[in-house]
Amino acid sequence: MKTLETLGRIGESPEGMQRLAFTPADVEGRKYVTTLMTRAGLEVRVDPAGNIIGRVEGKEPGLSAIALGSHTDTVPSGGKYDGALGVLGAIECVQSLRDQSITTRRPIEVLDFTNEEGTRFRRWLYGSRAMAGVLESDDLTAVDDEGVTIGRRLEDVGGDISRIQEARRQKGDLCAYLELHIEQGPVLHQAGIPIGVVTAITGRIALEVSIIGFANHAGTTPMTNRRDALLTASRIIQAVNSIATHEEICRVGTVGMAKVSPNAENVIPGRVDLSVEFRDVELDRLHEAVHRLNGICQQLVLDKDFEIKVSELGVTKSAPMSPRLREIIEKASLGLGLNTTSLPSGAGHDAQSMAEITDVGMIFVPSVDGISHSPKEYSDPEACANGANVLLNSLLAIDGEGD
Amino acid sequence: MKTLETLGRIGESPEGMQRLAFTPADVEGRKYVTTLMTRAGLEVRVDPAGNIIGRVEGKEPGLSAIALGSHTDTVPSGGKYDGALGVLGAIECVQSLRDQSITTRRPIEVLDFTNEEGTRFRRWLYGSRAMAGVLESDDLTAVDDEGVTIGRRLEDVGGDISRIQEARRQKGDLCAYLELHIEQGPVLHQAGIPIGVVTAITGRIALEVSIIGFANHAGTTPMTNRRDALLTASRIIQAVNSIATHEEICRVGTVGMAKVSPNAENVIPGRVDLSVEFRDVELDRLHEAVHRLNGICQQLVLDKDFEIKVSELGVTKSAPMSPRLREIIEKASLGLGLNTTSLPSGAGHDAQSMAEITDVGMIFVPSVDGISHSPKEYSDPEACANGANVLLNSLLAIDGEGD
Repeated sequence: MKTLETLGRIGESPEGMQRLAFTPADVEGRKYVTTLMTRAGLEVRVDPAGNIIGRVEGKEPGLSAIALGSHTDTVPSGGKYDGALGVLGAIECVQSLRDQSITTRRPIEVLDFTNEEGTRFRRWLYGSRAMAGVLESDDLTAVDDEGVTIGRRLEDVGGDISRIQEARRQKGDLCAYLELHIEQGPVLHQAGIPIGVVTAITGRIALEVSIIGFANHAGTTPMTNRRDALLTASRIIQAVNSIATHEEICRVGTVGMAKVSPNAENVIPGRVDLSVEFRDVELDRLHEAVHRLNGICQQLVLDKDFEIKVSELGVTKSAPMSPRLREIIEKASLGLGLNTTSLPSGAGHDAQSMAEITDVGMIFVPSVDGISHSPKEYSDPEACANGANVLLNSLLAIDGEGD
Repeated sequence: MKTLETLGRIGESPEGMQRLAFTPADVEGRKYVTTLMTRAGLEVRVDPAGNIIGRVEGKEPGLSAIALGSHTDTVPSGGKYDGALGVLGAIECVQSLRDQSITTRRPIEVLDFTNEEGTRFRRWLYGSRAMAGVLESDDLTAVDDEGVTIGRRLEDVGGDISRIQEARRQKGDLCAYLELHIEQGPVLHQAGIPIGVVTAITGRIALEVSIIGFANHAGTTPMTNRRDALLTASRIIQAVNSIATHEEICRVGTVGMAKVSPNAENVIPGRVDLSVEFRDVELDRLHEAVHRLNGICQQLVLDKDFEIKVSELGVTKSAPMSPRLREIIEKASLGLGLNTTSLPSGAGHDAQSMAEITDVGMIFVPSVDGISHSPKEYSDPEACANGANVLLNSLLAIDGEGD
C-alpha cells in the first residue's frame, strides 16, 4: 500500500492521476519503479520499446522465466490502482521472496509495459505488443498532437525505435505471464468475492456510424419536411444499447462519442458521426451484433431519405487465458481462504499481447462500485493484499511444476 | 436581380455567403447598399447602432414615414437572398418611383439593419432592437470571441455605442414598416403560391437540458449497471420531436446541439448537454411544450439514477403582424394577379423588433425546397420580382390611405 500511495502521488492532481505515457510524470513514475525493482534484487534493463524489465535469476540454469507485470502509465484523470497494482504487486512478490531468502527454481521477470493506455498516439498496449512481436507499421510512424514522432518520444523513456525488433521475445523465453489487475467493473464488488479468475479478455469491434441528413432552419422547416440526423442518431444509440441489453447478442455495446454538425441551436442537425463498439468473448457474436446494426440502419434509410455509413474501424480478437494458469490461480486463492469466481475481462490488458507468445493468467480484485479510469477508482488495502498474495502463491505453484 | 447578384458576390466563396456583421465583407456590402440608395435619390445616414437609413421626403410635410427594410449581414455559409432581397427590393421600389417621377405623399425610408443574424456577439436583431428601444444591458457590453467589444466593432460600420440611445425611434415616427423576405421554409414552394402574407412571427422558447449520469469503462461495466447519459439524451431527443410531430403541442421542436462528455469511444458518456427549442405563435403552447418535456424528464429520472436539469434560456414572444397591413399586402398581390396564402414566420426577423414601435407587415416569396442559411438557398427571378412588385404596390396603398 505504501508503494501504491507513493507512486499515486506522482502526477496526482484534484482531477486524478495524470501519468500519460512519455510525459515527465511518467518518467518520474518509471524512475520510482526502477528504484523499487533494484531494492527487491531485480536486475533492471529497459528494452528498445521502453519496457522496464526487472529480472532475478533462479536456482536451476536454463529454465525459462516466469513473468509478472502490467503498466504504470495512466489515462487522463485516471486512478491509482489501474496498472500500478500489477507492477507494484509483482515487485512486492519478489521483495517478499528476498525477505524470506527464498530463491525460485526459475528466473522471475517483472515487466512494466510502455504506453498500455494508448492515450498517447492512440496506439495502445504498445510495449507489450512490441514484446509479442505484433506491432503494425503504423505503430512505428505515429505522430502525436504536437507533431512529435513516437520514435522521438520513446527516447524519453530509454527506448530506441531503430532497434524495436529486439524488444520481441520468442515463444519459449517465458513459461508463463501473470497479471494482477483491478477488475474495473462491479461484478466482484457487488458479489462480495475477493478474487476473480479471468477466463478471457473479450474481443472488441469498433465502428463509426455516420448519419447524413440535411441541415436546415429550425424555425421554418416543418416537422414533416425534416431530415434530422440527430433524431436518426438517437434511434441508432438506442439500437446499440438494445442489441446488448435486450437482444443479448453480445455482452456490451456502447456509443461513446457523438459529433453533431453544424451543432447550432437553431439549425436542424445535418450530420452526426457516432462511435460504436461491441465487446464479447465470442467473435461470432460481435459479427452478429454488427449484422444486426446494419439491418437497423438499412431500415432507417428506407423509412426516411437518409444516408447512413457504417465503417468497421477494427477488430480486436478475444484472448483466452491458459486453463492451466486459471487452475493454479484458483487453487492458490482457495489455499489462502479466498473465494473466487470466473469472469471475462471487458477491458483490454497487456496480457492479451503476451498471450501471443506464452501462457497467460490474470487475477482480478474488486473495484469499489466498479469505478475505473476516474479519480474515484478505489480498491481497499485488503483487496490489494489478497491479489498480491494470490499472485505470489500462483508464482510459487508455477515454479513448483515439472518442466 | 442585377443588384442581388452584385451584392451576392461580396463575401462569396464556394461555401456560400459570408458577410458576418462588422467584417470587411459586411462593410463592403454596406458601401454598395449606400451607393444604390444614393442613386435612387435617398438621403443616407448611419445611426449610432450602425443602421443604414436612406430617406426620401414626400409631398406633404409633417406626415410620418413609411419604412421598408431588412438586413444585409449573413450567417456563415449563408445565401444570397436572406435579408438582401428585402433591402435591395426596397431600394428598387424607390428607384422605380424616381424613374417614373412619382413622389409619394409620405416620406419613405429604406432601412438596412445592423447584425440581424446575431452570428457576431450572439446578440441578434441588433440594429432593429436599438431602433425599437429594446436593447438589453448585455447588448452594450458584449465581447466577441476575439475579445473585442461590440462598441469597438460598431465603429467599423459607422456606429457609436455612447450615443446608441439616439438610434431609438418614437412611436408615431413611422406609420408602417414593411419587410420583404424569402420564406426560408418550403410551404410556398410546395404549394406553388407566389406570395405569403405573414400572420405573425412565431415565438420561441430556448432551453438547455443537461443529463448527468456516470462516466465509466465501456468494456467492464455491464449493461445493467450503466448510467449512460447519451442513451437518456437519445430519449429526450425523440421526446422533443414527438411533442411537435405526434402530440402537436407546438409547431416545431428541435435539438440542434449535443455536447457529450467525456466523448471518448471507450467511455460510457457521463454527461450530455442538449440545446432544445420550441416555436409557436401561441405562448401558451410553448409553455405547454416545456411542461410536457419536464414531465418526460422527471419520468426518466425516476426510471434510472440520473440527474436532469432543464434550464430556460429565454423566451421570445411572438409578434403579430398588423391586420391592416396584411389586408393591404393581400389586395396588392391580388391586384397583380398573384395568389396568396397566410402563414406564420418560423424564423425571426427585424419586423418583430419594429412591431414594438409601429404597424408591421411581411411579404414572403418562395424559397426553392425551403432551403435557407445555406449556399443552396435560391428564389427564382420571378419570385423576387413578384415580391418587389407587391412591396411597391403595398407602399403606394399605404401612402394613399387617409391620415
